[in-house]
Amino acid sequence: MNNGKQFINGERVASNSPSLQSINATTYEPTGYKFSQATVEEVDKAAFAARIAFDTYHKTSHEQRAKFLEQIAIEIESLGSNLQEVASAETGLPIARLQGETARVTGQLRLFADLLRRGDTYGARIDVALPNRKPLPRVDLRQYKIGVGPVAVFGASNFPLAFSTAGGDTVAALAAGCPVVFKAHSGHMATAELIGEAIERAIALCNMPKGTFNMVFGGKIGADLVKHPAIQAAGFTGSLEGGMALFNLAQNRSQPIPFFAEMSSVNPVIILPSALKNRGEKIAQELVASFNMGSGQFCTKPGLILLIESEEANQFIENMKLHTEKSVSQVMLNEGTLKSYNEGVRKLQSTKGFTLIASGQSADIVSKGQTNLFQADESLLLSGNENLQHEVFGAMSIIIPTSSEKNLLKGIEALGGQLTATIIADEEDFSKSDELLSLLSRKAGRVLFNGYPTGVEVSDAMVHGGPFPATSDARGTSVGTASIERFLRPVCYQNTPQSLLPEALKDENPLNINRLINGNITKDKI
Amino acid sequence: MNNGKQFINGERVASNSPSLQSINATTYEPTGYKFSQATVEEVDKAAFAARIAFDTYHKTSHEQRAKFLEQIAIEIESLGSNLQEVASAETGLPIARLQGETARVTGQLRLFADLLRRGDTYGARIDVALPNRKPLPRVDLRQYKIGVGPVAVFGASNFPLAFSTAGGDTVAALAAGCPVVFKAHSGHMATAELIGEAIERAIALCNMPKGTFNMVFGGKIGADLVKHPAIQAAGFTGSLEGGMALFNLAQNRSQPIPFFAEMSSVNPVIILPSALKNRGEKIAQELVASFNMGSGQFCTKPGLILLIESEEANQFIENMKLHTEKSVSQVMLNEGTLKSYNEGVRKLQSTKGFTLIASGQSADIVSKGQTNLFQADESLLLSGNENLQHEVFGAMSIIIPTSSEKNLLKGIEALGGQLTATIIADEEDFSKSDELLSLLSRKAGRVLFNGYPTGVEVSDAMVHGGPFPATSDARGTSVGTASIERFLRPVCYQNTPQSLLPEALKDENPLNINRLINGNITKDKI
Repeated sequence: MNNGKQFINGERVASNSPSLQSINATTYEPTGYKFSQATVEEVDKAAFAARIAFDTYHKTSHEQRAKFLEQIAIEIESLGSNLQEVASAETGLPIARLQGETARVTGQLRLFADLLRRGDTYGARIDVALPNRKPLPRVDLRQYKIGVGPVAVFGASNFPLAFSTAGGDTVAALAAGCPVVFKAHSGHMATAELIGEAIERAIALCNMPKGTFNMVFGGKIGADLVKHPAIQAAGFTGSLEGGMALFNLAQNRSQPIPFFAEMSSVNPVIILPSALKNRGEKIAQELVASFNMGSGQFCTKPGLILLIESEEANQFIENMKLHTEKSVSQVMLNEGTLKSYNEGVRKLQSTKGFTLIASGQSADIVSKGQTNLFQADESLLLSGNENLQHEVFGAMSIIIPTSSEKNLLKGIEALGGQLTATIIADEEDFSKSDELLSLLSRKAGRVLFNGYPTGVEVSDAMVHGGPFPATSDARGTSVGTASIERFLRPVCYQNTPQSLLPEALKDENPLNINRLINGNITKDKI
Repeated sequence: MNNGKQFINGERVASNSPSLQSINATTYEPTGYKFSQATVEEVDKAAFAARIAFDTYHKTSHEQRAKFLEQIAIEIESLGSNLQEVASAETGLPIARLQGETARVTGQLRLFADLLRRGDTYGARIDVALPNRKPLPRVDLRQYKIGVGPVAVFGASNFPLAFSTAGGDTVAALAAGCPVVFKAHSGHMATAELIGEAIERAIALCNMPKGTFNMVFGGKIGADLVKHPAIQAAGFTGSLEGGMALFNLAQNRSQPIPFFAEMSSVNPVIILPSALKNRGEKIAQELVASFNMGSGQFCTKPGLILLIESEEANQFIENMKLHTEKSVSQVMLNEGTLKSYNEGVRKLQSTKGFTLIASGQSADIVSKGQTNLFQADESLLLSGNENLQHEVFGAMSIIIPTSSEKNLLKGIEALGGQLTATIIADEEDFSKSDELLSLLSRKAGRVLFNGYPTGVEVSDAMVHGGPFPATSDARGTSVGTASIERFLRPVCYQNTPQSLLPEALKDENPLNINRLINGNITKDKI
């Protein structure tokens, strides 16, 4: 028997009996793990615990926080293969993929520990006093960044580890000095509980405040969490509808809060003529593999393929159809996801201008999704048809041949914001790619050449963000070290005595970090 | 006769006749300058012009933009004393103050030119490819920042130059590569026109796209501007009510946009016992001078004075009363501001727990505001009374003696977010200031020691921001070089050919800027 209760201030509590079932993604049978629906009072207690923890936690040193993140990684590793087995049962994702995801989670925790030790995220800036400046002297001004306060995190269904309980948003918040209240995803509650317990052990071992991490289970509590006055920011990964509903609640509070939602992206792939000519067959194979991978359940799945009409384009489409037809059906994350996928496909089938040109092998069991390839009319692209903006989550893609390069650019201009945009091009195409690249830079958070967008490296330079509707704020990223910036705010100290200044801003630079002093980046003392 | 028409795409256009009058702040008589109310179509054209200009303008080099900002400074200087004379007539602010403000505007433009040349705001980050990494190779990833798109700017009444047409928000947006649509403030339209013309001359001389700057006059158009799909972010300085009305429109668009509003702050000043004992008389004098300066029309006016009950505190309050009574009345910015001020004072007078303990010399002319000092009960502070949260804009302040140090801290905890918080302390107080400083860091964007908050230096380390309701987003600042971050978004390039990469991200580092390469800040080539 699992515990199944809420994680609040270092304790497991529940008013309700454990009525929420964890479900096997393949068989739709209960896995045996049960959870209690959180009450409004429990959400309130969790948010309040985070609020109290913030007072202490945001003052912990970067070194203390780095050790804490590393300890979470160790605790997750100590869960062994049971973690992947439980996650695989709940999500239908293969063990190997979940092993990779576990490595990603622990790698991410350690990367943020390194980031904290590096000290860049202090954002230390010092303008020394200029007592003799004319006409007015300058005071001593020192700025650094602190956490915004408790952060609510809503994990994604498709990455039960990397975008969930100890995933990107949680790590970014904890690194920023912000306690977290995590809303467990109904699709992998048992996985969330294992990770939650690992975090709790790390909190105890590292003597962090008990309310540094809290987790609540159940439906309908997302709204209560976002509206809670103690919550000062939120991170979300999920659908456009779900994200915007919570975003609107966050903005309509009496005190609005930053709400970063990563939502909907069709991730256009643009294949330029020379590449198509030189290696169209290979591209067709790779592209079908890419939108099929993990049953197409990636935020960065290439859902829209654009090229210019030609003999090679026709051949390419034939090849895409062939590879699509060979694709085997795969278990999807849960019944709801499969249903949404099938509805999305049916909707396109019944929409004028969209033609289903190929389908993969049919599902042998009820929980699998079939691969589908659509072709759409250029006119839909040029008119910014809304069916081309809305992500259909699953193993499908839409291919659109355009009648000219001009229309290709015009069509891309009509698209909404994207997480990624990909250019498949050869040497001869590069000279013509300038305008295209500039256009895609305006449209997407990440622009790729000759690759497929599904791999998202966790590093300093990654952007997993982009203009609306890809996210709710194009200035953020939810992957990579820059994601911490979403949960930091600057504070400036004026003429503050050395003894009272934070370490990062003392004259002696005791942390030996880079600081912007009078306009120069330096590790010098003052 | 002035032109009085909208500034749209490098032209002056107006459908309406010039029915809007510029008013003399002292006499309430027309100054003779007249303006045309912008139509919805004109707002649409201005936003569209900015949208078209963005395509070209965001690709200008930092050097080109730096020269452009410097040229704006030169053009403003060439306006000579006429600028200050017109501004003084429209706002009632003294010529000397407006000379200082002009220097602040031109200094700010040149600081941002330096910032652009420094190259920090590219935020260049490079993770080089690791083809041999196990288990998976790393791709080449390069991130830098570009402008978010056209920015709508709403200037403030109280700084007709520094927070207006070519003020902080405009400069930050232009430096970020974002064209601006500026809504001229009704309180200083003739001043705005002079500055607008200066910007237009700089655009022509520097060959910038015509729609880089646009300005519209009149009421009720703010909503149209914020709702316009071409607008991608907005900066606002003004009242809580006005700011939140526009903020809500910005968030309820089908595509929500970042809306940075600097709104309401009472800027608490906390006087600690030793300082009070050692130099209470001097502090009283300085503090009255500070909340009186410019008729108290500063966002950072110290509107709340907190101390602990004592014999010295009683004497201090007597001194405050004395200095208040000596204060002369001053012309306020306009009839509406004076009316709001008087209403705010009347409201406090009729609210239980607030006592008007001193008033300055009465107004000799209708456009002047009288200085007022209130005392309030500790209970109001402890209960977070809303009258202590809402800024009363004008020459008034509220003093509250608390019965203990504990209640002082508890009372501060109950306050909303602030632009500034000030600690007046002597050596003996410092050892007890740790908890207070930590608390104020959570509450305010800037914490000062032994100074008064009204001076806001334009520099790298300044924060003119803070938790709600001081601003709509505690992560931003509207003064200082960090203000540019509000209008920038990151873009990541993956495996992109050298020839197509922006200069900031090429291997050779042709701009010779600092970049974060594989986790280290360096100017090295790759």
